[in-house]
Amino acid sequence: MNVNATTEVTDKIDEHIEQNLDGWLDELARLCAIPSVSARHEGIAECAALVQELLQKRGFATDISPTGGHPVVYGRAEGADQSHTLLFYNHYDVQPAEPLELWETPPFELSRRDGAVFARGAKDDKGEFIARLAAIDAVKAVTGGYPCNLLWLAEGEEESGSVNLPRWVAENRDRLRCDAAVWEEGGTESDGTPMMRLGARGLLYVELRAKTLSRDAHSGGANLLPNAAWRLIWALSSMKDADERILIDGFYDAVRTPTEAEDGLLASLPDRVDEYRQEFGLDRLLTELSPIDRAFFEPTCNVAGFGAGYQGEGSKTVIPAEAFAKLDFRLVPNQDPQDIFRKVRRHLDSHGFEDVELVDLAGEPPGVTEADAPVVRLTAEIAEEVYGKAPQIAPLSGGTTPMFLFTQAGVPVIAPGVGWGSANRAHSPNEFVRIEDFKLAARHLARLVLRFPET
Amino acid sequence: MNVNATTEVTDKIDEHIEQNLDGWLDELARLCAIPSVSARHEGIAECAALVQELLQKRGFATDISPTGGHPVVYGRAEGADQSHTLLFYNHYDVQPAEPLELWETPPFELSRRDGAVFARGAKDDKGEFIARLAAIDAVKAVTGGYPCNLLWLAEGEEESGSVNLPRWVAENRDRLRCDAAVWEEGGTESDGTPMMRLGARGLLYVELRAKTLSRDAHSGGANLLPNAAWRLIWALSSMKDADERILIDGFYDAVRTPTEAEDGLLASLPDRVDEYRQEFGLDRLLTELSPIDRAFFEPTCNVAGFGAGYQGEGSKTVIPAEAFAKLDFRLVPNQDPQDIFRKVRRHLDSHGFEDVELVDLAGEPPGVTEADAPVVRLTAEIAEEVYGKAPQIAPLSGGTTPMFLFTQAGVPVIAPGVGWGSANRAHSPNEFVRIEDFKLAARHLARLVLRFPET
Repeated sequence: MNVNATTEVTDKIDEHIEQNLDGWLDELARLCAIPSVSARHEGIAECAALVQELLQKRGFATDISPTGGHPVVYGRAEGADQSHTLLFYNHYDVQPAEPLELWETPPFELSRRDGAVFARGAKDDKGEFIARLAAIDAVKAVTGGYPCNLLWLAEGEEESGSVNLPRWVAENRDRLRCDAAVWEEGGTESDGTPMMRLGARGLLYVELRAKTLSRDAHSGGANLLPNAAWRLIWALSSMKDADERILIDGFYDAVRTPTEAEDGLLASLPDRVDEYRQEFGLDRLLTELSPIDRAFFEPTCNVAGFGAGYQGEGSKTVIPAEAFAKLDFRLVPNQDPQDIFRKVRRHLDSHGFEDVELVDLAGEPPGVTEADAPVVRLTAEIAEEVYGKAPQIAPLSGGTTPMFLFTQAGVPVIAPGVGWGSANRAHSPNEFVRIEDFKLAARHLARLVLRFPET
Repeated sequence: MNVNATTEVTDKIDEHIEQNLDGWLDELARLCAIPSVSARHEGIAECAALVQELLQKRGFATDISPTGGHPVVYGRAEGADQSHTLLFYNHYDVQPAEPLELWETPPFELSRRDGAVFARGAKDDKGEFIARLAAIDAVKAVTGGYPCNLLWLAEGEEESGSVNLPRWVAENRDRLRCDAAVWEEGGTESDGTPMMRLGARGLLYVELRAKTLSRDAHSGGANLLPNAAWRLIWALSSMKDADERILIDGFYDAVRTPTEAEDGLLASLPDRVDEYRQEFGLDRLLTELSPIDRAFFEPTCNVAGFGAGYQGEGSKTVIPAEAFAKLDFRLVPNQDPQDIFRKVRRHLDSHGFEDVELVDLAGEPPGVTEADAPVVRLTAEIAEEVYGKAPQIAPLSGGTTPMFLFTQAGVPVIAPGVGWGSANRAHSPNEFVRIEDFKLAARHLARLVLRFPET
């Protein structure tokens, strides 16, 4: 154990966190009062300025850095040991609050009740951000400074797919050098077991569009006139069969199987098949691998949306002139979204669907942190200390987050955080974070800052 | 030629039609002022009462007959020759007028301009109805009465699929006995050539519904959770291949080829391939049979609508829990919608889609009038006299109308009418009928009443 992290020190940190909660919640209330809705480009500059103010107050040298979209707030603070650097990733934009009528209190006014605080962004990601400030405040208050260098990267487009972030990161690689990055979306399972996810799948999101006629036609002409909906149905059915096998040539080429270390982690995870079945009212899942997390090492091809023709009540006899399908592929190590995009295009062309337009809407490679990275062990050890339970460590999550921006540069990514299972209603009305989870995350993060990079 | 139909008589009839136009347009204005929108059940009783009044005024014994839905207005008038009966079919309901902002004058106020009258129903089917009243008025004015018995069947649910009509017709078969029936949707091609369509394809309209999850899920779980959109894509692609071949077992069993008489009619029809290509911006039609009407002897399977998941701008990563597809089959002689429905269900079951719900939304058998029926010859002969051109006679139209209700009982169906190609904007804003077409139809119909059943 690091010399800084004696019981005396950590007790004082916990006490500091306990006693100064109101101050952080006031800061969280100020952040949540700015409706920085990414999709509407609202409150962006104002929210970036407040993030900057909050970092400056903690001694960070900051700048608001243009990206072509919403700016990144960048911050840097020097620590006692200048040879090691820990980076925090956050985002200051939020999802829209709609449907507004489902909120019990106004979405942009932080409301404290039932041991929690409610607001859009209370958890995702403003609550996460403030919990980290609480952690470094406590460390500084108790030890008089930061033990290592701290960097901050707070982006403003996470809820719109972080489209400008990869280029910004590439252009700022020098001042992003760090030994580990703390990501978002961490926390515990609903039973309080801390959960660590070491990897995220990649994503390719495309839209297929067919246009077969200059306008919709009466279906009496269906022998004569090509139907855009049928074009897409045939194109899509050529891409995946009813056994869920993806039929795109070369699609699986780059897929790697779990490493030995990943296999070890998988073996220690709970099964969760029943949990999934119950949550979605199913007798059977598509795959019943145990644990369920094994399935995340397989890529997917998901129809996220399909629209064509008449969608109202009853019957209307029309040949749709246009149709579209939205398709997302979850990509696994070592698949690459650009490579997959090219293969989808080639598949369509070689199967007679040259007429189907393919539009690239988003792409992120997968990202994985090595299971045996020292910071993973350290984070797990602290989790057990703070939460009283050894964490579950999943090698790969089903979803996507752009941790590849750091893992591809060899930087391990961990994510202690304020989440509580999937209960926080991020993206939904009445988003909340529990005060208890906030304090536990702050305690976890403070210890991490204190001990990093203990090896 | 019938003794009644001397040139002296027909000249007087034409003169009567010319001189009394305003009276019929006043009646049409009264009818169009009632927004008898079928889908909204508006103005139905009021409109039925006015139809009854207009028939009573012409000496018809009438009743308003319940159907379980909107009532049928039934009328009967005796003619000099009581051994022959001609029936008129009409409907007094209309399509919704939306989008209202596209109307140049209010949809429920008949507006006369540019040689035409504009209103919802001005053509479909209130204008058609009044043209027929004009015809019988002229015959009565010139000859002092009706030469044969006349029946009227005016239904109120045509725009909602005539769902209650088949049962009503079956229950009223005795008082519907007739030697021929005059249907709607007749008139000329856009170049003024009279068009006669002797048959209509049948229809089966179904909705396929899939529900795979209790709620939409995050697409990170796409390996585990069945996707309703994919279920329907696979189910549909099993039903028709990209070469437009319908793969449902037994689907084509009852299809008959054109008779010799039908073949003769087809051979005399114009090609129309280029016309279709141009109208819809196509290099090639799905089939380029010549004439195009040959294609109508093939049944179709058309996706009229498909809806699932996210259909907004950009990307949302969701697994749709529910999806639906609307499907219409145009059926040819001697296919039967109930038989086809059973075959579709059986197909789904035998291809692993027992979970896909199949909902029967509408069904009508095809109907055909024999090409060599005497009333067909008579109608064609009069058409040439009135329009100055021999009519085109198509054995089967691409669309559907429930003429099977009479043809299945051996009653030939013809349809002289007020239509002008596909230009009348029936079902669209600024629906109109040209005054000239109204008068030509009235002259055609008057001569038909006068000479029927001349053989």
